[in-house]
Amino acid sequence: MTQLSDRARQYARAPANAERFLAELFEFLRIPSLSGDPAHAADVRRAAEWLAEHMRGLGLDKVAVMETAGHPVVYGEWLGAGPEQPTFLVYGHYDVVPAAIEDGWSTPPFEPVVKNGRIYARGATDDKGQLFIHVKALESYLKTAGTAPVNVKFLIEGEEEVSSPNLKPFIETHLDLLKADVCVISDSSMPSIDRPAITHSLRGMTYIEVEVHGPKQDLHSGFFGGAVHNPALALVEILSGLYNPDHTIAVPGFYDDVAPLTPAEREMIARNDLSEASLKEITGVPAAWGDANYTLRERVSARPTLDINGLWSGWSGPGPKTIIPAKAGAKLSSRLVANQNPHKIYELLKARIEALAPPTVRVEVRLLTTGEPALIPFDLPAMQAAVRAYERGWGATPTFVRGGGSIPIVADIYTLMQIPVVMMGYGLDDDGLHAPNESYSVEMFQRGIETAIVYMEELAGLKG
Amino acid sequence: MTQLSDRARQYARAPANAERFLAELFEFLRIPSLSGDPAHAADVRRAAEWLAEHMRGLGLDKVAVMETAGHPVVYGEWLGAGPEQPTFLVYGHYDVVPAAIEDGWSTPPFEPVVKNGRIYARGATDDKGQLFIHVKALESYLKTAGTAPVNVKFLIEGEEEVSSPNLKPFIETHLDLLKADVCVISDSSMPSIDRPAITHSLRGMTYIEVEVHGPKQDLHSGFFGGAVHNPALALVEILSGLYNPDHTIAVPGFYDDVAPLTPAEREMIARNDLSEASLKEITGVPAAWGDANYTLRERVSARPTLDINGLWSGWSGPGPKTIIPAKAGAKLSSRLVANQNPHKIYELLKARIEALAPPTVRVEVRLLTTGEPALIPFDLPAMQAAVRAYERGWGATPTFVRGGGSIPIVADIYTLMQIPVVMMGYGLDDDGLHAPNESYSVEMFQRGIETAIVYMEELAGLKG
Repeated sequence: MTQLSDRARQYARAPANAERFLAELFEFLRIPSLSGDPAHAADVRRAAEWLAEHMRGLGLDKVAVMETAGHPVVYGEWLGAGPEQPTFLVYGHYDVVPAAIEDGWSTPPFEPVVKNGRIYARGATDDKGQLFIHVKALESYLKTAGTAPVNVKFLIEGEEEVSSPNLKPFIETHLDLLKADVCVISDSSMPSIDRPAITHSLRGMTYIEVEVHGPKQDLHSGFFGGAVHNPALALVEILSGLYNPDHTIAVPGFYDDVAPLTPAEREMIARNDLSEASLKEITGVPAAWGDANYTLRERVSARPTLDINGLWSGWSGPGPKTIIPAKAGAKLSSRLVANQNPHKIYELLKARIEALAPPTVRVEVRLLTTGEPALIPFDLPAMQAAVRAYERGWGATPTFVRGGGSIPIVADIYTLMQIPVVMMGYGLDDDGLHAPNESYSVEMFQRGIETAIVYMEELAGLKG
Repeated sequence: MTQLSDRARQYARAPANAERFLAELFEFLRIPSLSGDPAHAADVRRAAEWLAEHMRGLGLDKVAVMETAGHPVVYGEWLGAGPEQPTFLVYGHYDVVPAAIEDGWSTPPFEPVVKNGRIYARGATDDKGQLFIHVKALESYLKTAGTAPVNVKFLIEGEEEVSSPNLKPFIETHLDLLKADVCVISDSSMPSIDRPAITHSLRGMTYIEVEVHGPKQDLHSGFFGGAVHNPALALVEILSGLYNPDHTIAVPGFYDDVAPLTPAEREMIARNDLSEASLKEITGVPAAWGDANYTLRERVSARPTLDINGLWSGWSGPGPKTIIPAKAGAKLSSRLVANQNPHKIYELLKARIEALAPPTVRVEVRLLTTGEPALIPFDLPAMQAAVRAYERGWGATPTFVRGGGSIPIVADIYTLMQIPVVMMGYGLDDDGLHAPNESYSVEMFQRGIETAIVYMEELAGLKG
């Protein structure tokens, strides 16, 4: 067995192949597959078609761009290891969040470039560059041995960045097609290149939009200022009422279902400590913030949050405009932890906002998306196989960490398919995903491919 | 004398002339002279040139587009009444606030149309349509009698909507050119077409911009949410700290210099009462708001305010985007009353905002513009002549009212030139100025011209 993975690793490492892998990834990154913007629907489909075509070129079977009620899913499989070997399901997403040069990008977000060993492009680390690791790992086996140690299926969706509204129904109606023994997802990060990590927990999400309506149209602030409740002020008053002075969330019932952290869990989180100095350096903030009863790492991974993601009202262009805006709005997202229920949290948020809404304005609360939190036990065999894969393929023993982000589908796969979900993230905390100048280390990409090659080998024989 | 004004009125009323006056106004309205947007600088100048050319066509002298440090001033004069007669200075502004069809306009804002007796266009009532009244009044005398009862000078600026930063220095350096006995300004409104009003008070203004800076760039809310002070939240907290629960302004010292309303003043304001029903109907708000110690009319005209004119942060496009925004900003304007000082108010606002700013973010406060409040005694002869002009020209006795808006230049003219400033507004409260679908009654325009014709006659002989 070792020989097979060694040859596959040599293939992946060969300069001509490594260079070609990057060139292929660049083609993929050039497609602005923004799933949240209807204007980019054709680009999203183009990214799906590109990936399917690429899989066909590698000899995968049943490759298809499969329709959903939203953006399509790309499926492909290679089952040549035979029924006695386990099947390895790779989940990833080919869609990306918005990016525009005027947001502060140094280079155009959809024209990837390598600078100082990092690939700069929207989607480089989240998640095109990470999902591509598994495609290239399988290629490395097929092009050297003509076979692989395990069967492999790919389930690559196009709506992760809009919280996967159609993936759960897709899985439910394709349980046979997707049947597998373990699911691997590379869509997270490790603390540093020498400290690989397996994410065993993710936060869920409740994402809402609040809109405050006042006058039927913008008013001249001189004619009505003082007698009309300014919708921007009403919004400000409502939003400030959602937080306590100690930075906890002032929504009755919000914390009720949060699974308390055990001393053992807190000890494990402390191994991956986040210092205030480090937080300040990575983010540029003048000081840390948050609930003083928890460490910074706990706050960003094991505690629920409520963030304002956007605010808008009235005039934001150059110069003054003396209006009372007709309306004001905000996008708010709450990161959830086990065992919070996103729909219950939505109801609590809505009730609190409605209770805060004064009779001088009209307030609307809309649910945009939800995602379940996930917490996977780390003593499962597939988890322990991943530990060995890092030791052999990456050269370091991984730690188990809690991710602060949300991959709603993790909880869905775990419960619907009843298989372990192993999150082997190859990003770094300062990749800047969802931000301008998103980047991805070329070395992480290459070492990720080798680790994925070894993981397939470590999974062989582990069939259920 | 009466004969002169009668003939001038007949001229203005003649259908062919009335129609041409409208067509000329439409040409003027088609020029998008947005003074606050550098991209429209050439349009602003084009509006000035158009007006100057129009004045030349009527036979005015010394017509010129005069440079300032910003947008130019249009000057023109007719001094044919001779030195024994008073000189009447018309102030107005040819610039407008922004307007775009997507803000909710039913027709393009710079393509004027008449619907149900109203002209729909940006600038229709504020102020192109109102200043044009005086141009047409003078034309009506010159084309019928070849002379007019008083000398007339026009001072039409292009920066009123950005608070006239260069007009005060312009007046200071052109005191001889502008020398006059009375200044008339038509840039305000009357309660209804049957209730003409002379504005004898205007609110001043302090307009600021607040920007809160947190992380150096937008952050992924999953990775940092809970440990970083969200700049949008910090802004919300700061802004909510500027108001008391009773809707007064929570800025120490803010009300210190406010001239208290006397019982007589409150009685006069009560004659022009604003009911909650009427406020709700005009604006569409579900209920009135404000300081319960004052009537609605007092709140909108005789009391200072603090309004949020704009808010911006993070993502406001379609769909969710899970970021902690790098920054958040707001535009805030305070309407001031006699004897508040706009610069002192700026210092008080800035000090309060800085006191509210937490160490977890960096806050910037910038002054955008200021304007002095104005309060003109209504027993001056030029004021009383205006009363007679309305009685004869409009057909109703006007009331003296306090305007809630700001024409900063009123205070400047009053103090620099030491002449009465008579505000004869021909707008209506529901013209929607500064809002989508700004409009202006054709009848108000026509009756305004006749009243202006009579006013010139009533001023004859009143020379200082």
